[in-house]
Amino acid sequence: CAKIVKKQMEVAGIRAKILPEKNGNPVVYGEVRSKSSAKTLLIYGHYDVQPPEPLEEWVSGPFEAKMQGKKIIARGAADSKNNVSSCIKAVEAYLKTIGDVPLNVKFIFEGEEEIGSPHLPSFIEENRERLKADSVVCYDGDLDETGRAEISLGVKGLLYVELRCRKAREDLHSSYAPLVENPAWRLILALSTIKGTDDRILVKGWYDDVEPFTPAQSRLVGKIPFRAENLLREWGVKKFLHAKTAREALKRYLTEPTCTICGFKTGYIGQGSKTVLPGSAMLKLDFRLVYNQNPRNQLRLLKVHLRSRGFDDIQVKALGFLEPSRTKPSAPIAKAAAKAAKMVYGTSPVVLPRHPASGPDYVFTKRLGLDSIWTGSGPPSAYSHAHAPHEFPPVAHFLAGVKYLAGIIHSYANIA
Amino acid sequence: CAKIVKKQMEVAGIRAKILPEKNGNPVVYGEVRSKSSAKTLLIYGHYDVQPPEPLEEWVSGPFEAKMQGKKIIARGAADSKNNVSSCIKAVEAYLKTIGDVPLNVKFIFEGEEEIGSPHLPSFIEENRERLKADSVVCYDGDLDETGRAEISLGVKGLLYVELRCRKAREDLHSSYAPLVENPAWRLILALSTIKGTDDRILVKGWYDDVEPFTPAQSRLVGKIPFRAENLLREWGVKKFLHAKTAREALKRYLTEPTCTICGFKTGYIGQGSKTVLPGSAMLKLDFRLVYNQNPRNQLRLLKVHLRSRGFDDIQVKALGFLEPSRTKPSAPIAKAAAKAAKMVYGTSPVVLPRHPASGPDYVFTKRLGLDSIWTGSGPPSAYSHAHAPHEFPPVAHFLAGVKYLAGIIHSYANIA
Repeated sequence: CAKIVKKQMEVAGIRAKILPEKNGNPVVYGEVRSKSSAKTLLIYGHYDVQPPEPLEEWVSGPFEAKMQGKKIIARGAADSKNNVSSCIKAVEAYLKTIGDVPLNVKFIFEGEEEIGSPHLPSFIEENRERLKADSVVCYDGDLDETGRAEISLGVKGLLYVELRCRKAREDLHSSYAPLVENPAWRLILALSTIKGTDDRILVKGWYDDVEPFTPAQSRLVGKIPFRAENLLREWGVKKFLHAKTAREALKRYLTEPTCTICGFKTGYIGQGSKTVLPGSAMLKLDFRLVYNQNPRNQLRLLKVHLRSRGFDDIQVKALGFLEPSRTKPSAPIAKAAAKAAKMVYGTSPVVLPRHPASGPDYVFTKRLGLDSIWTGSGPPSAYSHAHAPHEFPPVAHFLAGVKYLAGIIHSYANIA
Repeated sequence: CAKIVKKQMEVAGIRAKILPEKNGNPVVYGEVRSKSSAKTLLIYGHYDVQPPEPLEEWVSGPFEAKMQGKKIIARGAADSKNNVSSCIKAVEAYLKTIGDVPLNVKFIFEGEEEIGSPHLPSFIEENRERLKADSVVCYDGDLDETGRAEISLGVKGLLYVELRCRKAREDLHSSYAPLVENPAWRLILALSTIKGTDDRILVKGWYDDVEPFTPAQSRLVGKIPFRAENLLREWGVKKFLHAKTAREALKRYLTEPTCTICGFKTGYIGQGSKTVLPGSAMLKLDFRLVYNQNPRNQLRLLKVHLRSRGFDDIQVKALGFLEPSRTKPSAPIAKAAAKAAKMVYGTSPVVLPRHPASGPDYVFTKRLGLDSIWTGSGPPSAYSHAHAPHEFPPVAHFLAGVKYLAGIIHSYANIA
C-alpha cells in the first residue's frame, strides 16, 4: 500500500519516498516546495486499515473498491484512504491549475495508526530536520453527525496495562478454596485500591500533572453541540454516569482521566457451572490521561502504588503509551481550518478543546513543538461503517474533503 | 448404560428395575432380600461418567475398556464403574457361595452424579417407602494416596450462582468511560461487599446456621494424615492461605464456608490491547457450605444483601444447590466400614468428619434421616486419571473393592 501511495503522490507532482521502518510498516514521505511562500504545513495521515474480518458480511470484496451508487465500498475507504487521497488531490489541483502551492507542504503517511503508532515517536526523532514546519494538520477525522467539520485541539493520552496474577500451576478443584489463594480476588482487591466508587483514581499523585482547561478552552466546551439523547439511545443506556445534566456529562467526557476495565478473565467462563479455583487471572486496564499527564510517569505511579499496598504478586505489563496533546484555540492553523470548514461545509466547525479519544498527536505538539489540529472529511464513522464490514464514504464526502484540505492550505497561507 | 447395569444385577441374582426420570437419566434400582436378617443396607452409586474429551489423548477408545497389563482403561472405569461393579459382584459372591446375603440390600445407581444429581432429591421423595433402610453406603470414593480407605461422615454443601450485570447494549469505545457505567466495576464492587480480605463472608446472617464440630468430630480431625508438602508441591503453591501450620490449614479446609470466584469474564480477553468499555460482565461464584447451612436460605441472604447494598442492577441466577450432610462418628455403619477397611487393606481407614467437597449425601441423611458414609475402593483419583483421558483402575483395586463392600455388609450385619 505504501508503494501505491507513493505512486499517487508522484502522479500528483509531489516528490515522494518510502522511509523504511526496521520493525514495522514504512512511512511514505512527500514534499512540495512553494515558489511564493516560506511557510510550511506538515500533513499527517495513515494508509493502514483495520483487518477486513468478518469477510462474509461484506457485500463485495473488502479490497475491490466497488462503486455502489454514489458510495465507494472498501476496507479503509472511509478510515482513512479518502482523507489520504484528499490531501494528495488537493495539492495536485494547485499544481495543475496555478502551477504552485501557496505554501510548502510536507506529508507523512504512516502505516501503523490502527495499531497505536508504535514507531512514530522514534521516526519523528530521527527525522526532526526533514519535518521542520510551522504547523501540522492531522487529516484523519470525520464530520459530525449533522455534517459539520470537527477540529480537535489535542487528544487524551493513554496508558494500557495488563495485570496478571498466578497462584497455582493450574485451575484447582474449588473445594481447596480454604487452602489456596484465589488470584482473581487479588486482582479485585488491587482494583478496589486503584479506584473509588466515585470513579476517582486513588493512586497517589495520579492527578498531580493535570492542567485544568484554560478559560479559552472552557469557552469552547460551551459551544459544543452534545446530542445526549441520541447517544444514550444508541448505547441502550438510561443515564450518564455521575452527571446530573448533559452539559456536566460532556465536561466529564472531555476532562476526566479514567481507569477502565477493558477485559477480565479467570477460571471457567463457559455455560453452566464448573467448580474450579482459578490458578491465574488476567485483567486489562485502560487509563485515559489528560494534559499534562505522562503515561510512563503514570505507569511508575501505578507500580509504586501496587508495591506499597503489598501487591508484589501482581505482574504489570504495559501494552500501550500515548501522551496527551494540546494546541491553543488561538493557533493560526486552528483559525485557518475553521475558516476553510465554514467555506466548504457552509457552517462553522465544531471545535473540541480536546478529543476524548487518543492518538499520536503528541509527536507533533510535544516532540516537534508545533501547533497541530486533528480534523478530516470522513463521513460520521457510525454511518460509514468505519472499522466494520461494508465500509464506505460517499463520493460527495471525498470531493468535499479535497476542497476542505485545499481550503486549509489556502487559509493558512494567507493568515497573518 | 442403565440397561447394562440392570442386566449385570440380574445376572448376579439381584431383582433390578429401571426407574425412569422424566427430565433426566433413570435410576437403576435393585433389591436382594436376606433370609437371615431384617436389617437393610442401602447402597448408592452412579453409572454416569464425565465426557471423554479430549479424545486424541486416549491411548485406546474411551469406551473400549481395554486391558493394558493389569489396568482397565476406559472412561468411568475408575469413577465410578469399578465401584458399581464391586457392589454387584460382592452381593453375587454371597448369593453364589452361601446362597443368602447377611442383610437386605437395596441399590440405587443414578445417572446424573457428574452433573450435580439434579433429580435425586425428587426421586428420593417419590420413593421413600421403597428406600426404607437402616443405613446408607455411598460407594463412590477412592483410597488415599498411601492405599488406606477413606470414610467420610458427611460432605460440605454447595450454592453455585452466576451474577450478571449489563450496562450498554454492546461493548463501547473506552473513550466513553466518563459517561457510561462499567458493569465489571459493579460486579467487583459487589464482590468487595461479599467477602473481606480475611476471606470472611460479610453477608448478614451467613454463619448463623453453622454448627461447629462436636468433640467427637474434632477428635477425628486430629487423626487425619495431612500430606501438606505433597499438596503444595503438586499445586505449585508456596504456602497455605491464612494458616501458620499444616494442621491449622487442614482444620480450615474441613470447617470453613467459602466464597470462590470460579470464573469472571468481561470485555476483551484476547492477546494485546483493545480499548473497550464492556457492555456486560459475568461472574460465577461457588459457595461451599458447612452443616447446617441450607443453600436455598443462603441464596436468599445473598439476594437480600445485594438488594440492601443497592445492587439492583445485578442479576443472580442459581445454578446449583447441594445441602451439607452429617453422620455421627459413632454411627454403626461407620464402625462397620472401618472394621471392613482394616480387614481388606490391612490398615485403619482415614475417617473424615466431613469431606471438603460436595455431593448428594444429604438426600440420605436429611431427607431419609439415615446414617450415611461416603467411601469406595477407587485408586487415588490423581493416579487413576479420573475425569481425564486414559482413566484406569488396576484390576487389583477392583478385586479389593469387591472384598471391601462384602466386608462392610458382613460387619454391618453383625454389629450390635
